[in-house]
Amino acid sequence: MNERLVKQLSLIIELDQLKSVLRRTRVKSADGRLENSAEHSWHVALMAILMEEHANEPVDISRVVKMLLLHDIVEIDAGDTFVYDVAASLEQEEKELAAANRLFAMLPTDQGEELKDIWLEFESAQTPDSKYAKALDRLIPMLLNYHNDGQSWQEHGVTQEQVLNINSKIGLGSQTLWDEAKIMIEQAVKNGWLKK
Amino acid sequence: MNERLVKQLSLIIELDQLKSVLRRTRVKSADGRLENSAEHSWHVALMAILMEEHANEPVDISRVVKMLLLHDIVEIDAGDTFVYDVAASLEQEEKELAAANRLFAMLPTDQGEELKDIWLEFESAQTPDSKYAKALDRLIPMLLNYHNDGQSWQEHGVTQEQVLNINSKIGLGSQTLWDEAKIMIEQAVKNGWLKK
Repeated sequence: MNERLVKQLSLIIELDQLKSVLRRTRVKSADGRLENSAEHSWHVALMAILMEEHANEPVDISRVVKMLLLHDIVEIDAGDTFVYDVAASLEQEEKELAAANRLFAMLPTDQGEELKDIWLEFESAQTPDSKYAKALDRLIPMLLNYHNDGQSWQEHGVTQEQVLNINSKIGLGSQTLWDEAKIMIEQAVKNGWLKK
Repeated sequence: MNERLVKQLSLIIELDQLKSVLRRTRVKSADGRLENSAEHSWHVALMAILMEEHANEPVDISRVVKMLLLHDIVEIDAGDTFVYDVAASLEQEEKELAAANRLFAMLPTDQGEELKDIWLEFESAQTPDSKYAKALDRLIPMLLNYHNDGQSWQEHGVTQEQVLNINSKIGLGSQTLWDEAKIMIEQAVKNGWLKK
């Protein structure tokens, strides 16, 4: 069998594990279970397609979607970190880079390097595509959480200040979406879901 | 607030429900739970990116990925149908079309029509993009199932003939992947996971 195909199939099987990495956001369902990083990646990639017109700068939606489909695969090794846990986030970077090196090296070299570059671009968030992608990755848990009576904020005692600080970068990718997010945050405080 | 944004955000919240639609394939994890359609959609969209070089004809990968991210959202209303349940599949078509009409109508008209057309193109599987997308949607459960000791085939008493009949269309999108699938099917029969 084709050597390239063998490598690609191995990574696809490996990726199944992302379905078992749990986040802090809950799915709106009867059992209110925690969301996993695979279904989150689907949701945010589709959101990118739906929201393209709200990006601050024109984006290459195909690259944005690739970024978002790939952005969390490193959690297979490194686990998910809660966005409001700043100390853990610093240590996390190293673990994620090691994971990226391992996972992308499973692919044929040219393909692995191309996709690792896209992953790194997302992490650095310096280009129009990656700023927009990051904005959505920050917005979607807030959005789901807001429509879930602020469950994750309440469970983890998150404050308004934390939410504003961590998420203000949404504005770098989409001012329209950040304006919308600020309205949600204000309402969440009024509803008692976010501590002042 | 922007009327278009209100509509887009409503659909995004609605889509959360796809995370609760269960399939017949199991995730390879400690609890061996059933896979849901949202995480499946992530997995197959990423597979499309990784496997692009194996498509029979050149494809527009951006459109293929859109198709795959959208293809199952109708299951929010219509539920998932087991691919080997042919009677249910016929009745399913009508339910899915009604669901597509409802969901895409939640969006601004131009956007909803564009995405519904992409969804219909996937369903008809007559273009290079949709033939390739369909091939992956058929292949990935076989692949996961194979790497899970044929769990779903065994649970539902599926035969080799059924698998060959239903999945031969993989070859319309990618002969390379169908050749690989046939090797897996043969091995699955040898392993006693598929009935002769």
